[in-house]
Amino acid sequence: MNNITVQKFGGSSLATPEKIKSVAAKIYKRISYGEKLVVVVSAMGKTTNSLISLSKEICSNPDPRELDMLLSTGEQVSVSLMTMALKEYGISAISLNSFQAGINTFGDYSSARIRDFDSGKLSEYVEKNQVVVITGFQGINEEGDITTLGRGGSDTSAVAIAAALNAKCEIYSDFAGIYTADPKIHPGAKKLKTISYDEMLEMSGLGAKVLHTRAVEIAKKFGIEIYCGATFSDEEGTTVTMNTIENPVVTGMSIQDDQTLVTVNNLKPDFNTVRNLFETIADNNHNVDMISVINNNGTINLSFSVIEDEREYVENIIKTFLGNMPESVLNYDHNNVKLSVVGIGMRDAKGVASRFFKALSNVPIKLVTTSEIKISCLFTKEYLNDAVKSITEEFGL
Amino acid sequence: MNNITVQKFGGSSLATPEKIKSVAAKIYKRISYGEKLVVVVSAMGKTTNSLISLSKEICSNPDPRELDMLLSTGEQVSVSLMTMALKEYGISAISLNSFQAGINTFGDYSSARIRDFDSGKLSEYVEKNQVVVITGFQGINEEGDITTLGRGGSDTSAVAIAAALNAKCEIYSDFAGIYTADPKIHPGAKKLKTISYDEMLEMSGLGAKVLHTRAVEIAKKFGIEIYCGATFSDEEGTTVTMNTIENPVVTGMSIQDDQTLVTVNNLKPDFNTVRNLFETIADNNHNVDMISVINNNGTINLSFSVIEDEREYVENIIKTFLGNMPESVLNYDHNNVKLSVVGIGMRDAKGVASRFFKALSNVPIKLVTTSEIKISCLFTKEYLNDAVKSITEEFGL
Repeated sequence: MNNITVQKFGGSSLATPEKIKSVAAKIYKRISYGEKLVVVVSAMGKTTNSLISLSKEICSNPDPRELDMLLSTGEQVSVSLMTMALKEYGISAISLNSFQAGINTFGDYSSARIRDFDSGKLSEYVEKNQVVVITGFQGINEEGDITTLGRGGSDTSAVAIAAALNAKCEIYSDFAGIYTADPKIHPGAKKLKTISYDEMLEMSGLGAKVLHTRAVEIAKKFGIEIYCGATFSDEEGTTVTMNTIENPVVTGMSIQDDQTLVTVNNLKPDFNTVRNLFETIADNNHNVDMISVINNNGTINLSFSVIEDEREYVENIIKTFLGNMPESVLNYDHNNVKLSVVGIGMRDAKGVASRFFKALSNVPIKLVTTSEIKISCLFTKEYLNDAVKSITEEFGL
Repeated sequence: MNNITVQKFGGSSLATPEKIKSVAAKIYKRISYGEKLVVVVSAMGKTTNSLISLSKEICSNPDPRELDMLLSTGEQVSVSLMTMALKEYGISAISLNSFQAGINTFGDYSSARIRDFDSGKLSEYVEKNQVVVITGFQGINEEGDITTLGRGGSDTSAVAIAAALNAKCEIYSDFAGIYTADPKIHPGAKKLKTISYDEMLEMSGLGAKVLHTRAVEIAKKFGIEIYCGATFSDEEGTTVTMNTIENPVVTGMSIQDDQTLVTVNNLKPDFNTVRNLFETIADNNHNVDMISVINNNGTINLSFSVIEDEREYVENIIKTFLGNMPESVLNYDHNNVKLSVVGIGMRDAKGVASRFFKALSNVPIKLVTTSEIKISCLFTKEYLNDAVKSITEEFGL
């Protein structure tokens, strides 16, 4: 580390010119301590949503390349305004968009991944003690097209830049840090001082919105610590790091709403069929979760969960797929929730599963999946409050 | 010419998604005739003004580099939406921003000029029968920074691109063509079928807002004809070309409002003083006009006009400049208008000046300047209606 810190500010922290000025004041304070900062910004407030709505007024299904061209303007507005605000504090600052910053991507529009980051220009500015303000969420692919990194991609931008500069990374949002559960839904949730990469990955994957999954993956790969703090408060945040000193068995709980349980019964006993089905779903960029496959008396029964918003798309894919298998039966079960507990301590502690199921003994569980550090189960929404209460008590969250 | 046409659409023609779709329909019609089109677009409606206002909420005097970074997003939004709209018509289309299009600039931020245009990528797409939609108003300077070309700069972009492709150029706005006077103010103004580059240059310089001066300069230099038409009507427009077949003596009349007459009397009889004063004003990017310098009994009396918005800046420059010349006297005379008549026919026709002054015999004229094809005079605003009536009658406008 070289006394450089990459700070990322989320959209709600930049929603108005006043907020941008407040963030500039925060940066000014750090600069005055002699630190070198690189600032990564998201689009202001709900700009990305507004731009998507604007495109929908042109056509229902905008061309992905053009949509990325459109959305990338949101962050470009932010970098210029932030740089103006920094200059008002007498800070030597300069904005760079993704063409200028050298963030190179590959993969699909709207969900591109960072291939490499040509940090030469950025390093030059940083060495001259300039605060460089970079557009998050985007990069340039090999064809020279603007590509966005998917929702929350600014986190990924910040961590990738920190990795290239061997810098510290700080992600600021309106919430200070990472909690054992979503504090907006569970006011009793406790804030974590540290969390391991692996736990954070499971938590992000489960819908904890503090940090983007791919950001955590890059941080883990390059050993970059991420501090997650609140933009407008000095309250202490959470550090995502390799290993926490002491691992509680269960670090956090996560809830995902609006889950539909999809069941396909009487499939031919041919696992290629199952593989093909999931490949088709993945090829169409839809996510299914909690996949369970059972060979039942010579036919295959298949279950998985999908968020209700994606259900229609997935249904169409399955129907097409099952077109020549009239014996198969497709069923839906709406209004479910997924509750998961995550904890790196599960690796070493025995009996977590049994404690989990004991706590949920009054909840009719429909589907269960586990990983090395996670247990998830699906049940009807009406049992959520009871389940959360039991799990919170059992694991002291 | 190679059957390629560069079409430029102004901001008010793109103010809403509905209008963008209408423009796409217009383009579709032309494409269906087998034409190859390149489309240059401005920012939607009042976007540029909104972005400037946003920057003013951050600071009163935004950094010019950052302001250009900010403003350039306006056209990027337009190109992506326009391309989406074209694709809805089944047209093969692609958007390019100024990084991608290869428009290279030099000079100051907010008033950069086009150095060259690397048309390779564009030509490739055009050859493949793709409609390329390019951000007007902007380019990239040698440092790789986004620079804007000044108000109305999208016209300049369009003509420069047409010149590089040896294409025809069409500039569309809400008005069909160029009139003998501003039709919004003078409903009796007549539309011109053709106008020469030189006349158009004088007209643009006088504030006729149909076409940007620099666009006309480039068109003249490369012999590109510009057709100025209405976006949403089939009414015939005006072609700006080298020479019109028959030149009326006076082609048009132009009015500039809000003029202040500035007079500096009793300057030392040293023309270096005068030169230095105007150099200082020009170095600060303020425009003065109608400069008149008289050597009066051994001292110099100096007069010029300036638009009221610029008066305070110019006043400060003059006051600083006159600091060590206490004998000099600075005077202002507000609420004047400048009326000009322009016509390439003036070159050959005699007596235009005398007809001009005869028509204005009842108007107390304060200042007069002339060029080869233009006469301008300054007088108090209350005489404007009478003056316009007399000039219109005298020259049949």
